[in-house]
Amino acid sequence: MSSSEKIIIVGAGLCGSLLAIKMAQRGYSVTVYEKRSDLRLGVQDAGRSINLALSDRGLLALESAGLKKIILDKSIPMRGRMVHPLGDEPFLSRYSGRDGEYINSVSRPGLNTMLLEEAGKFPNIEMHFNASVNHVDLNEARVEFVDEHGQTGTNTADIVIGTDGAGSAVRRSYVNHTASLRFDFSQKFLGHGYKELSILPTSEGGWQLEKEALHIWPRGEFMIIALPNLDGSFTLTMFHPYGTELGFDQLQTWPKVRDFFHQYYRTLLPYVPHLQEEFFANPVGNLGTVKCYPWQAHGKTLIMGDSAHAIVPFYGQGMNASLEDVRIFDELIEKHGPKWEQVFTDFQELRKPNADAIADLAIDNFYEMRDKVKDLPFMRKRQMEMRLEQQYPDYYSKYSLVTFRPEMPYKQAMDLGRAQDEVLLEMCQNDDFEDVPLQNYHDRLKELEI
Amino acid sequence: MSSSEKIIIVGAGLCGSLLAIKMAQRGYSVTVYEKRSDLRLGVQDAGRSINLALSDRGLLALESAGLKKIILDKSIPMRGRMVHPLGDEPFLSRYSGRDGEYINSVSRPGLNTMLLEEAGKFPNIEMHFNASVNHVDLNEARVEFVDEHGQTGTNTADIVIGTDGAGSAVRRSYVNHTASLRFDFSQKFLGHGYKELSILPTSEGGWQLEKEALHIWPRGEFMIIALPNLDGSFTLTMFHPYGTELGFDQLQTWPKVRDFFHQYYRTLLPYVPHLQEEFFANPVGNLGTVKCYPWQAHGKTLIMGDSAHAIVPFYGQGMNASLEDVRIFDELIEKHGPKWEQVFTDFQELRKPNADAIADLAIDNFYEMRDKVKDLPFMRKRQMEMRLEQQYPDYYSKYSLVTFRPEMPYKQAMDLGRAQDEVLLEMCQNDDFEDVPLQNYHDRLKELEI
Repeated sequence: MSSSEKIIIVGAGLCGSLLAIKMAQRGYSVTVYEKRSDLRLGVQDAGRSINLALSDRGLLALESAGLKKIILDKSIPMRGRMVHPLGDEPFLSRYSGRDGEYINSVSRPGLNTMLLEEAGKFPNIEMHFNASVNHVDLNEARVEFVDEHGQTGTNTADIVIGTDGAGSAVRRSYVNHTASLRFDFSQKFLGHGYKELSILPTSEGGWQLEKEALHIWPRGEFMIIALPNLDGSFTLTMFHPYGTELGFDQLQTWPKVRDFFHQYYRTLLPYVPHLQEEFFANPVGNLGTVKCYPWQAHGKTLIMGDSAHAIVPFYGQGMNASLEDVRIFDELIEKHGPKWEQVFTDFQELRKPNADAIADLAIDNFYEMRDKVKDLPFMRKRQMEMRLEQQYPDYYSKYSLVTFRPEMPYKQAMDLGRAQDEVLLEMCQNDDFEDVPLQNYHDRLKELEI
Repeated sequence: MSSSEKIIIVGAGLCGSLLAIKMAQRGYSVTVYEKRSDLRLGVQDAGRSINLALSDRGLLALESAGLKKIILDKSIPMRGRMVHPLGDEPFLSRYSGRDGEYINSVSRPGLNTMLLEEAGKFPNIEMHFNASVNHVDLNEARVEFVDEHGQTGTNTADIVIGTDGAGSAVRRSYVNHTASLRFDFSQKFLGHGYKELSILPTSEGGWQLEKEALHIWPRGEFMIIALPNLDGSFTLTMFHPYGTELGFDQLQTWPKVRDFFHQYYRTLLPYVPHLQEEFFANPVGNLGTVKCYPWQAHGKTLIMGDSAHAIVPFYGQGMNASLEDVRIFDELIEKHGPKWEQVFTDFQELRKPNADAIADLAIDNFYEMRDKVKDLPFMRKRQMEMRLEQQYPDYYSKYSLVTFRPEMPYKQAMDLGRAQDEVLLEMCQNDDFEDVPLQNYHDRLKELEI
């Protein structure tokens, strides 16, 4: 297996490092530029989300590189949402009615380090850290960068692929290249930011809350979620509005923060004795959606992952969508060979509707998580979804279609899932919804798939 | 009148040069950076649209600087659309039922030159041409530029205002400054481009087509328009799709272009004997909409005009909206004084809904101009609008609200105008629409304003 194809990848995050591995497995010559330092050296970037939900789409992509098992070994299954309503007992809302279907809490830097270690095994991957690509000549597949010594340089390849995340520098070259590209681009921020907090392990190194769950404290306009870590800790993420009466801008003094937590997150307080310190030490991050098109330029440059379609985190699919990009891209090379213009064109046409779909679903889920999870119509629907999944192997709820059916494109999962939601919400309106035979539900839902 | 306020303006186009004049009239110290050369030296930029439709909103802004008369003296009234249907006689569709209401064809470089000449009279305006601002420090009101000698420099003021057009470099500093600004931004291109052509004057220096009209050859998916120039020529603009069977990409050889014009623009052919030369010499330009928010940053930097809200040209309002920005901005200084954070905040809150409205109206008008102008329901509605405007001084059609009522914000004009359209289209459905007393129409329409 050999090839003279030379590929430059900009960004060695999750998407970029898996892409490097897949391209190296094809025998291509891969050069990677990453502006951050090498995670393998143990330097952590505190500004990024510490853990993420890895599910079947991401796993399928990792499996194709032979990496599924070692990564699952370092993750914690989350079988459902543990909902903590205000002034009421917590309850578990399972992700699926079937036992084998769950999502996995993984450490972002841990996963990224494993991928970089794997990439390091390939002699045909050359990695440059602390190297910022500032400009890409889209026609020529040439990057301009500043290396770790502050020296500027250029490098040219057959193709350049940008996997440099939501704030992509490669994409900036697209925006500034509008004349011939007619590059549609939008970035839209949520009116909410986030702040990370934590729950420490027990003195024995165990978990203070149910380990195998994603915890949610839904409070309408705002919420906190928690994901378990291997060391017994949980990472909390507080999603909170700007500019409202109770918003981040108002929570500037400890008495205000303390009173706020007492009122809204009282049951959480025993687990966060270090709240004051963390709250004022940790920054507020922003959340936004990036959509753009085209993703390829002149058959020479492509963007994928967050740099092409950054989404808000509420469906737990951002990383999964980016890893799925790599799988689909690799399958198109399998089909066409390194006919890049063809591969790029097929890639963007296949992936764009799916990226748009998961972006919209992620926004929908924000409203669902912070509020609806504890509302009656939603809980009735969820109850029927569980019963249906237990009974019928061919039935998948919207959540399950998105999360546990990696072979179904996001767009199709969204369309079918939304249609199912409509049917179920209607059938659950009546108080006797539980008495209707399950088969009736199944029959109605099956009609949608025709 | 004196003030220590120092203002940097980036971009000396129509909006920037009027803004410089207005700020200088207030006694502020104004420094302008313009990346192009000085239009007063007679160097023309062939890449930009040669004439534009100046109407009451632009005129009101120019009047406030004492410039209305000298500019109207250099313009040509256009009293309506002269529609040239395929295979049928041309007909005039007036812009208003009232004589005094018309729009004006002006030369863009001519108007810009007049504004620069006026600006040149103020000792407190300093203008730098061939000077590109590449970056703005939004917190510090500091610009970084490359001057005409290729030297880099910086300059700091109390405030920086970006009026550097649709491809704004100032706005780019907003996009790259997302962390604290949460800057929503979108650029969306039309699937159509444009190419400029021309009709020469008669040998006596007269006009070959009706002079006081905006000519349209509507052809459904595409169209050509023509605006008169003072020298007897007309500037033609061909709006044409990309990527379709008859699109720009297909019109690559003279036989194809000739056949295409024979089929679709046959009546135009006698006026464009130089078609072959012009068609292949002139570039295809793109058309797009830019929306973004916020427009101000930290009370130090503001964008206005096309840099904040670039729109497609089909309502003839792009320039008018930008000049109106200057009028509104100046009125807010009159109200608050140079309390910039307050002025900027009020400005963006007032103007954003109106900028969005005219952007959407301009897209609507694209479809109207290229097709509907010759359709029966539209023509019936237009006929009644004319009769109503002739009869009732208090009635304005949607077009007239947008064009001839400069004191009414665009958003209000859009909402009222669209409601009026609905009523009229419904009342004109019946073939006896002409027999219904005009008073009935007027009564129905007046109900909308309550």
